[in-house]
Amino acid sequence: MSLDVPAIRADFPILSRQVNDRPLVYLDNGASAQKPRQVIEAITRAYEGEYANVHRGLHYLSNLATDNYERVRAIIARFLNAPREDEIIFTSGGTEGINLVSYGWAAPQMQPGDEIVLSVLEHHANIVPWHFLRERQGVVLKWVEPEPDGSLPAQKMLDAVGPRTRLIAVTHMSNVTGTIVDVGAIARGTDVPVLVDGSQGAVHMPVDLAALGVDFYCITGHKLYGPSGSGAIWIRAERQAEMRPFMGGGDMIRTVARDAIDYADPPLRFEAGTPGIVNQIGLGAALEYLMQLGMADIAAHERTLRDHARTRLRELNWLNVQGDAPGKGAIFSMTMQGAHAHDISTILDKQGIAIRAGSHCAMPLMEFYGISASARASFAMYNTTAEVDALVEGLSFCRELFA
Amino acid sequence: MSLDVPAIRADFPILSRQVNDRPLVYLDNGASAQKPRQVIEAITRAYEGEYANVHRGLHYLSNLATDNYERVRAIIARFLNAPREDEIIFTSGGTEGINLVSYGWAAPQMQPGDEIVLSVLEHHANIVPWHFLRERQGVVLKWVEPEPDGSLPAQKMLDAVGPRTRLIAVTHMSNVTGTIVDVGAIARGTDVPVLVDGSQGAVHMPVDLAALGVDFYCITGHKLYGPSGSGAIWIRAERQAEMRPFMGGGDMIRTVARDAIDYADPPLRFEAGTPGIVNQIGLGAALEYLMQLGMADIAAHERTLRDHARTRLRELNWLNVQGDAPGKGAIFSMTMQGAHAHDISTILDKQGIAIRAGSHCAMPLMEFYGISASARASFAMYNTTAEVDALVEGLSFCRELFA
Repeated sequence: MSLDVPAIRADFPILSRQVNDRPLVYLDNGASAQKPRQVIEAITRAYEGEYANVHRGLHYLSNLATDNYERVRAIIARFLNAPREDEIIFTSGGTEGINLVSYGWAAPQMQPGDEIVLSVLEHHANIVPWHFLRERQGVVLKWVEPEPDGSLPAQKMLDAVGPRTRLIAVTHMSNVTGTIVDVGAIARGTDVPVLVDGSQGAVHMPVDLAALGVDFYCITGHKLYGPSGSGAIWIRAERQAEMRPFMGGGDMIRTVARDAIDYADPPLRFEAGTPGIVNQIGLGAALEYLMQLGMADIAAHERTLRDHARTRLRELNWLNVQGDAPGKGAIFSMTMQGAHAHDISTILDKQGIAIRAGSHCAMPLMEFYGISASARASFAMYNTTAEVDALVEGLSFCRELFA
Repeated sequence: MSLDVPAIRADFPILSRQVNDRPLVYLDNGASAQKPRQVIEAITRAYEGEYANVHRGLHYLSNLATDNYERVRAIIARFLNAPREDEIIFTSGGTEGINLVSYGWAAPQMQPGDEIVLSVLEHHANIVPWHFLRERQGVVLKWVEPEPDGSLPAQKMLDAVGPRTRLIAVTHMSNVTGTIVDVGAIARGTDVPVLVDGSQGAVHMPVDLAALGVDFYCITGHKLYGPSGSGAIWIRAERQAEMRPFMGGGDMIRTVARDAIDYADPPLRFEAGTPGIVNQIGLGAALEYLMQLGMADIAAHERTLRDHARTRLRELNWLNVQGDAPGKGAIFSMTMQGAHAHDISTILDKQGIAIRAGSHCAMPLMEFYGISASARASFAMYNTTAEVDALVEGLSFCRELFA
């Protein structure tokens, strides 16, 4: 069944606004997605009538808030087809999730000379936490380059694995080129634990953790049409058992004495302090919204957008598009001779078209392509082929200005 | 000028709801405060019409969201009278703030045998991160007990400082007894850096960081009538300069290469990944609301509540109240012979009165008072003396049931 895109768009209040007296064409979804009224209403409902701190409370509102919050764990597990609900750990987003793995799992057990294999496609969120281990304890980062078209064969990652490799860290979908990585094939090809940055991937295609065989998979709520500060990481129970706590505070302990401490069982062990209660409730509403539409149908619609954009952008022989991997997502990184990416963004903005310019938190990939910045158009389920055409017109106008 | 409490109550939608067919009497503010419509509307406005990811964007919505978000830094600085706006670091709450100090400042420089002085009044958020240093690198925790009435003289903390003391970690206000600690006197009495957990203190009294002379001061947004996942920590610039990054990801770097990394200047250095944009915008609205009312007037109203509660609770000679420090805040921890704290909470809940029962994330203090749990009523600016009376009636009903 194909998506009813006009109906979806009507659910997103911001999409009907104007920017610079032009209808908003929002193509900055790779940075963050807009929110449907179902999410906004879930937030409002929680604060207006169902709010208190969760856990440990015994009064009505605390129990109600706890139920509303904890049921999101099951929603996330269903969304990702996670084998076990208690393998879902709430985070404030992908960054906190990967740092949890770096501090809680990797740092205590990695020795100098141990290796982490990671790809040049990675977002800084899946780079900097590993640089910490390099700087602080002599871990070696082994980088795997994509093909010139941006694709990253699983075998290339596997070929980099050696006897000292302790972790493979890889994205499910590049936030720059849209490259989709066959992370399941990587996991099947090795016994080394695999961490997947699903910040983009989980937004644009169905994820089946029971089938993928990876060990860590993080999602970022605000890219999933959910609220600021929402997110989660799935960590296989065997890996959780190898972890020490990351952040310390309330809720993650069983007992605290002056000279001793006993930690709670996972997943609470890794969730210190009052969590992002209403943020996660909003994320639950977002994921239910996505599951109702169907991730397969969302992916199919976005393939249509990708194909239309690919065709139209190829007609612009003065435009360079970084990467064109088969099966890629609807994300396009672009440069134009004579026009800086920032100028392109600024000129498109005057026409109401929101794209991002810069290094997209992916400097190693920028370096691979020999550029310092690009203009990026990243599509979402509510975008239309007419918006692709608006982008092409806007780019053509830039070309006229700068040619 | 005294507070117009009915007008304030009208701003909080949840306060007009019923619980168990009785008007809600919400006395669980120490766990989390309710939200005024000004905060809820700020969240809705952001998501409905002004949302995009912040920083690095060049399009209209990104600039607008960045402005709305970054101006909160100035609001927080004004609320705390912080000397410098760039000393404010956004966090997801007090817990993340204290962990930032533990991982970013304390861990890299503390040697085995170095000491942290902390009080038995502390919340687990200001205990567990220091236990990590004890467990992982041999740091010694030196505990300072309060007086039996719960008060904590500054001199007692100072007396515990020795040549190996590297940090004093202390609460501004106990979340169990309401004890207010003269953290300024502690800071004036020593050169050792002082970390203050302001999760309760900043909610109930004016804070003047320019005068206090401490080094670290964290606040928790959801206790300040702000959204889930909001908060900040003020860190004196000299201390920031001694810190290494905590979480790694986007926004906190200047450049990332395959074998080198260069970090951004503070405060961004300590803010990895997409921040809690809309949460912090909501916190800004909450703090503006508080400043419009005036923290001194809020404190005065809460003293009235405290005095009324103190008087009424003293009449109940079968009730034990833990701590009664002069000048304490309006937080009361209570036990009753023959009735478990959980039973008290459950019975009060049937009358619409929300209190908390348990150890309140303060097990060392529970141990000090020789109890495992208490029932806690914690008041806020929107509470009334009639609600104090409702609490007393509810407790009396419990007494009848269990006597």
